[in-house]
Amino acid sequence: MILDIINKKRLGEELSYKELDYFFNGYLNGDIADYQMSSLLMAICINGMTDEEIFSLTKIFIDSGDVLDFSDIPGIKVDKHSTGGIGDKTTLVIAPIVASLGIPVIKMSGRGLGYTGGTIDKLESIPGFRVDLNDREIIRQVHNINLVVTGQTGDLVPMDKVIYALRDVTATVSSIPLIASSIMSKKIAGGADKILIDIKVGNGALISNEKDAKKLSELMIKIGEVYNREVRCIISNMDVPLGKCIGNSLEVIEAIDVLKGKEKENNFVELCLELASNMVSMGKNISKKEALSLVNESIDSGNAYSKFMDMVKAQGGDINGIKKSKKTIEIFSPKSGIVKNINALEVGKLSLALGAGKVSKADKIDYTVGVELNKLVGDKVSKGEKVATLYVGKKEPDYIFENIFDIV
Amino acid sequence: MILDIINKKRLGEELSYKELDYFFNGYLNGDIADYQMSSLLMAICINGMTDEEIFSLTKIFIDSGDVLDFSDIPGIKVDKHSTGGIGDKTTLVIAPIVASLGIPVIKMSGRGLGYTGGTIDKLESIPGFRVDLNDREIIRQVHNINLVVTGQTGDLVPMDKVIYALRDVTATVSSIPLIASSIMSKKIAGGADKILIDIKVGNGALISNEKDAKKLSELMIKIGEVYNREVRCIISNMDVPLGKCIGNSLEVIEAIDVLKGKEKENNFVELCLELASNMVSMGKNISKKEALSLVNESIDSGNAYSKFMDMVKAQGGDINGIKKSKKTIEIFSPKSGIVKNINALEVGKLSLALGAGKVSKADKIDYTVGVELNKLVGDKVSKGEKVATLYVGKKEPDYIFENIFDIV
Repeated sequence: MILDIINKKRLGEELSYKELDYFFNGYLNGDIADYQMSSLLMAICINGMTDEEIFSLTKIFIDSGDVLDFSDIPGIKVDKHSTGGIGDKTTLVIAPIVASLGIPVIKMSGRGLGYTGGTIDKLESIPGFRVDLNDREIIRQVHNINLVVTGQTGDLVPMDKVIYALRDVTATVSSIPLIASSIMSKKIAGGADKILIDIKVGNGALISNEKDAKKLSELMIKIGEVYNREVRCIISNMDVPLGKCIGNSLEVIEAIDVLKGKEKENNFVELCLELASNMVSMGKNISKKEALSLVNESIDSGNAYSKFMDMVKAQGGDINGIKKSKKTIEIFSPKSGIVKNINALEVGKLSLALGAGKVSKADKIDYTVGVELNKLVGDKVSKGEKVATLYVGKKEPDYIFENIFDIV
Repeated sequence: MILDIINKKRLGEELSYKELDYFFNGYLNGDIADYQMSSLLMAICINGMTDEEIFSLTKIFIDSGDVLDFSDIPGIKVDKHSTGGIGDKTTLVIAPIVASLGIPVIKMSGRGLGYTGGTIDKLESIPGFRVDLNDREIIRQVHNINLVVTGQTGDLVPMDKVIYALRDVTATVSSIPLIASSIMSKKIAGGADKILIDIKVGNGALISNEKDAKKLSELMIKIGEVYNREVRCIISNMDVPLGKCIGNSLEVIEAIDVLKGKEKENNFVELCLELASNMVSMGKNISKKEALSLVNESIDSGNAYSKFMDMVKAQGGDINGIKKSKKTIEIFSPKSGIVKNINALEVGKLSLALGAGKVSKADKIDYTVGVELNKLVGDKVSKGEKVATLYVGKKEPDYIFENIFDIV
């Protein structure tokens, strides 16, 4: 039976719900070995899956754990997911904006993975900020202030955890069907009514080309239809870091600047406006144009910022305690010109090397370190002018200017 | 590096010798995990390998263990390999024929695998027959009688053993490049000057269609060219069992009948003549037609049979001690007609169920059990006539007549 199933997929045939269920749950139960699952996963990577198979797999993933139910909370719950990027602190900005406009936001976020920081890690750079709220606390806080951003509660999609860990070490990550079922099962089990997905494309991202991003997008929309969930997908660039700052406390401070309206024009602000107006459009069933003007109002009026501060207070955080490292290294341009590119992946690596993320499980994150980009893509630079500031902790940075900055 | 290599093959790119060497030897050393190797093997199964990759892999396999050298023995050493079939006792017949014609035969054979019995197991049904000769004994016996059939000596291609065991449980057996490197590395490391391969095609075989058999054949001939070894391939049918008997002592007795010239016309005798005349043609550099008449002479003169008896004596066997089980079950045809087909795989399963092979490692083979086919394909049968005799041991047989015999 085990070998018959692998053989079918090896030959590019379609697996039934029963076969997928037998195999994946067999793996979760320990009846099927790692080396058998990785063999099947590779066959899936190469030969793909039909829509029916993807729907089956998504169901199997969802059914493997808890399914949250927030139907008691009035309003349309819109969840947002990003496939991960360097300097991606959008949740910190858009969750308060959307909540300030009367849409309940229950956002369960994750920790950093590889070069990309996690929202939960970023929030923990605010002293005292709790990210381990239980179900009762979540419901109460949403009732009170319409907004909560916390770590995952319950045991959502345990299947995804074990499969993802195996995919990570067997070069079977890059599979559109597997990525789609992984993301959608988590969002559906997380109790969202509508789902907005930010698919990152570029050198710092899981998906490297637009064509795959479109396929992934179409697939997730189809899965949403099966579960009667409206899904929208935004495809955004990840060749260049998002915004100016990379590193936990640095990113929180940058997010606050955006919420205060201090930052108006860069790729990060644009993405926030795009995502927030989509969420508001979905949550209120209004046009994106109408939604965008509400979003702008929320920032201009200060409502978005005060919603953020409500959340910090409700979750026990002390915003005045947030710290950047006092030890800095300034990076100067060796030549004059225009910044043509800033390599997202290399900035991510540098930030990780400074201690902003974990290389191994035992590492401790230094919340005060990171990279601030003083010049962004398109900016003019003179020779000797400062282009970046490194906030340094115990670890000495090691980088090559030309790997990060392309100045022409 | 590990993931880069798997990713390359996932995308259908060519791996260098260095990459294959790193990965396969890394696996043999325990630095690369089972689940990573199975992921690569599946990618190879689906995306194939270039000729260069196959040559690299064959070299890596050969270099993983001992390489035997029989150059001190005068004459061209021709080795024969079969991809495995039900009732395949050809080695017992052709090795003595070829040796009787002055060509040195050093045949290292294997044990049973799945439904197909191994030559070594069959020989062990002769009481006292030794199949564990050491190098010195092998050389001495070849000098004395020109013939030895024994178990493998030395540590030939240990890489193949671990890879085969993994392929067996991950549905990655059916890969032409992997089959070709596995077979050819063993034959080359085994010290053969020329190699004859009997590729079985059919429901009881590893290769299920003629097209794949041809591909495998071409590939092995190419590998032979790289190593300066003449390789010939015979493609033979394995939908139907070979000859009349399946089971260890039964097959030895049948082989003796062929050597004595008692059996003249069935698929087994035909295959023996085809293989033996190819080996003689290769070993003496003569035409196949000339070789065939030498082969027939060897049987008719009794030389082939006495060569077999020389071997039995030299290896300590007592041919009079060979036994068939006295407990038999006769199978009668429920209808009259012509035998249109006898299902090789089902006969193999029945023989295994009787105890002629091992289901698990701990099992003991019963050398006296097996299946004798009293009617072969093409024979006329009357209703109630005996079509088969089961030689039964401790295990009760369980079979469905129609699964084995197709009588129309």
